[in-house]
Amino acid sequence: MPQDIYEKIMMLAKRRGFIYPSFEIYGGVAGFYDYGPLGAQLKNNIEKLWRNYFVLKDKCVEINTPTITLYEVLKASGHVDEFTDLTVDCKKCKQSYKVEDIISKNISVEEAVKENKVKCPNCGEVLKDAYSVNLMFSTQIGIGNSRDAFLRPETAQGIFTDFHLLYRFAREKLPFGVVQIGRGYRNEVSPRQGIIRLREFSMAEAEVFFDPENKVHPDFDSVKDKELYLFDNEKEMKLSLEKAVENKVIDNQALAYYMYLTQEFLLSAGVDPKKFRFRKHAANELAHYATECWDAELYSERFGWIECVGIADRSAYDIGAHIEASGTDMYALRKYDKPKTVEIKKIIPKMDKLGPLFKNKAGEIKKLLENMEVKNQKSISVMIDGKKVKIPEDCYDIVKTKEKQVGEKFIPHVIEPSFGIDRILYCLLEHNYVETRKKGEEYRLLKLKPCVAPIKVGVFPLVNDEKLAKIAKEIDYKLRDAGVSTYYDDGGTIGRRYARMDEIGTPFCITVDHDT
Amino acid sequence: MPQDIYEKIMMLAKRRGFIYPSFEIYGGVAGFYDYGPLGAQLKNNIEKLWRNYFVLKDKCVEINTPTITLYEVLKASGHVDEFTDLTVDCKKCKQSYKVEDIISKNISVEEAVKENKVKCPNCGEVLKDAYSVNLMFSTQIGIGNSRDAFLRPETAQGIFTDFHLLYRFAREKLPFGVVQIGRGYRNEVSPRQGIIRLREFSMAEAEVFFDPENKVHPDFDSVKDKELYLFDNEKEMKLSLEKAVENKVIDNQALAYYMYLTQEFLLSAGVDPKKFRFRKHAANELAHYATECWDAELYSERFGWIECVGIADRSAYDIGAHIEASGTDMYALRKYDKPKTVEIKKIIPKMDKLGPLFKNKAGEIKKLLENMEVKNQKSISVMIDGKKVKIPEDCYDIVKTKEKQVGEKFIPHVIEPSFGIDRILYCLLEHNYVETRKKGEEYRLLKLKPCVAPIKVGVFPLVNDEKLAKIAKEIDYKLRDAGVSTYYDDGGTIGRRYARMDEIGTPFCITVDHDT
Repeated sequence: MPQDIYEKIMMLAKRRGFIYPSFEIYGGVAGFYDYGPLGAQLKNNIEKLWRNYFVLKDKCVEINTPTITLYEVLKASGHVDEFTDLTVDCKKCKQSYKVEDIISKNISVEEAVKENKVKCPNCGEVLKDAYSVNLMFSTQIGIGNSRDAFLRPETAQGIFTDFHLLYRFAREKLPFGVVQIGRGYRNEVSPRQGIIRLREFSMAEAEVFFDPENKVHPDFDSVKDKELYLFDNEKEMKLSLEKAVENKVIDNQALAYYMYLTQEFLLSAGVDPKKFRFRKHAANELAHYATECWDAELYSERFGWIECVGIADRSAYDIGAHIEASGTDMYALRKYDKPKTVEIKKIIPKMDKLGPLFKNKAGEIKKLLENMEVKNQKSISVMIDGKKVKIPEDCYDIVKTKEKQVGEKFIPHVIEPSFGIDRILYCLLEHNYVETRKKGEEYRLLKLKPCVAPIKVGVFPLVNDEKLAKIAKEIDYKLRDAGVSTYYDDGGTIGRRYARMDEIGTPFCITVDHDT
Repeated sequence: MPQDIYEKIMMLAKRRGFIYPSFEIYGGVAGFYDYGPLGAQLKNNIEKLWRNYFVLKDKCVEINTPTITLYEVLKASGHVDEFTDLTVDCKKCKQSYKVEDIISKNISVEEAVKENKVKCPNCGEVLKDAYSVNLMFSTQIGIGNSRDAFLRPETAQGIFTDFHLLYRFAREKLPFGVVQIGRGYRNEVSPRQGIIRLREFSMAEAEVFFDPENKVHPDFDSVKDKELYLFDNEKEMKLSLEKAVENKVIDNQALAYYMYLTQEFLLSAGVDPKKFRFRKHAANELAHYATECWDAELYSERFGWIECVGIADRSAYDIGAHIEASGTDMYALRKYDKPKTVEIKKIIPKMDKLGPLFKNKAGEIKKLLENMEVKNQKSISVMIDGKKVKIPEDCYDIVKTKEKQVGEKFIPHVIEPSFGIDRILYCLLEHNYVETRKKGEEYRLLKLKPCVAPIKVGVFPLVNDEKLAKIAKEIDYKLRDAGVSTYYDDGGTIGRRYARMDEIGTPFCITVDHDT
């Protein structure tokens, strides 16, 4: 049976130590893969290159937050209610399916469900009663008095919930960017696309905060003539950043700039430019938090165009939601030229009422009330120990007062380039896989770029005598000492050793011979 | 109220962007912390330094496996049954406690529980009915036909379950080492030591596989005279690696070598040598999988001696357990000088019975049976789709046959240095925190080593005029382009800018003045 390219790559990946199916000795489970020694190096190198673009060049700062995330965070962010797939169970053979996966492409999910047009791919039964399933893995923190939590569906929420602290770190100047690299989770109903649809995956996300009145990037001008490969769902086009923004193909300079940075990163990692494009999301496919989104798509012979990066304008959605839910002041400040005096409403807590009612929490509540912004809330609540507590009206007065303000508060907007590292890694393997023949035999090579290649240098003594081995080992040692990954190989013919390195994408080899 | 050093460091860490409490806007939850921009850089640098020792120098390979781990893996490894804490609930105030945390130090947990000597620290009630609680976070994979899973308590199991593939990658030669850096999880009953006892933490683990008859490290001789700081629970001593092994203070050369590598790593990261020691586990504190274990302990003024690294001899425990539970051939081979002919028992599957019984799984089962080792099992089972399936006796014959064998199979032994990155990070902050006075004012500095410092170079224009700023920005750009982390600062007096860099441990500053 002829193999397609995915099968060939996954076989090479397993044989050579790039990718193994997880838990294989216990039968495995869909949606989980391990990176072997070469795969983990390749992944580390992709992440290092990504940091070169987003941290060193674009000066984003990096943070690192837990994968376990409190229910409250993901309730506020909308994931508890919106991060779902329409699912259907087969009553006959007990399989469950994501409706989207098993219907023909020319009807909508809603239509398919309503008209009973979905059949079980396993046993042919007509499937009914589709329902929404939340795609987050859930767990509990602690025992007894435990707290509900999920594994994060994105790293972004860890950034948003720290916004007020990060804004202070940025010395209260916009724009600034924050990145996070780490695991994300999506409990797919029944994933069936191998390494392209993982239940646990690696993401690299940047959340860049802008003043909504000024969505420009300081480096935009230096790259405005560069061209982007765009696809608006009808036609492909090459357009300069400047033109794309002028013609409203892309909404704003900031979004265009991060599309450019994404393109640079992907091409320098070794993506085939002919298998790369940006595709704009249609209105009905936007995530619940996005106002505009472009996917960087990479072409795969097996899977077609794959979404590998999403570059979304999340506007004020997330920070607004967390301000609303937590009552924390997470606004940014647009400074006035001169301070203004304005009328505001403040809360004056009454300790004689709060004290008896809230005991040792009364002091904390007093402080929260004093710092609270009063707008048009019907009632006043504060978060205590993770719970929203309503404060009775007789515990405070609301007074109007005049205050000198140095600026106007606003919720910053967010541009988010979000990278799926695993998909990019797979596409790099596919785009750089070459089959040829050498001396009449089939010969496979990976033409990986040096910056991502897992092993940079193969080191071989021509023959395994003491003198050559000593020199070769010294070269190997010196390279490693300088931080260069090597593979020392004294087994088999030199031809076989080169072939081994070609197959794993090693760009350089050093052979120590008698003339050395 | 005078602060202790932990409070001072955690305040500095929050103010300057090293460490934030997670989910703080929703009231927070014990055992979870975020690394801010400086903390994440510090953590990345510690991990990079660790890789220098364990990957580049010691030539371990790195792999990367999921945090979500199948029930079957952790059942086999013993974690489902053994990874527990004795816990007690207060029937009056509803708090739950780990018994060990709330008893006085001079009685054992068993004693305290039996004699009702445990009182609720919150309300004073006598606590009864202690019970074992498993400390793994649990979750489910998929819906409907879901699979039980846990968040991994250690990264090690991802390595053990891939052993047969990694052994092939190492071209079937021992010893070889495999490392993994990533999150580990422990659902503590009620953690009360801040960042020292996290429910989600970062680990760096190495599993080094040895022939049990030959637990030596190829580089042992080159370091055998180096001294280790040892504490055998009675006295501290300095002992060379060679003497320690000769005198049976340390069981074998391999264990001693990895203790040495650990010591080198910690000291080069900036641990205070006077606050560092190796402590040997007493027999009653060994983990369920260990035959000998040394902790690298770092001293904290608040917490006393903290276990930051465990270097355990896990012997054949884990691989043996996975061979037993999965039936997979995960043995290593000790080659004979000449092949031997030996008598073995093999399974001859009967397809005419297997076919009707197992349908489309019959082929897979046939292959598993043919590769299975027959010893003294009472019945024959195979793993299919993650489930253990017993094969009826009439489906196969067991025949004795003679086979030429090139070597003897054995289960390799494992030496495991396991590092808690977060604890090391905290201790680096504490060991390098200095309070002094400058011009009559309190002055705080972190004397971090350049290799771990989050920011390597502060770049300042002396005054903010166009000419100086241009030069300073160019220097900043060139450093970043070369991969060096910088902090560009043109705000406030030069003195204040230096002070800011001192407080976050920046080793170098460049000021661009008019003479530049």
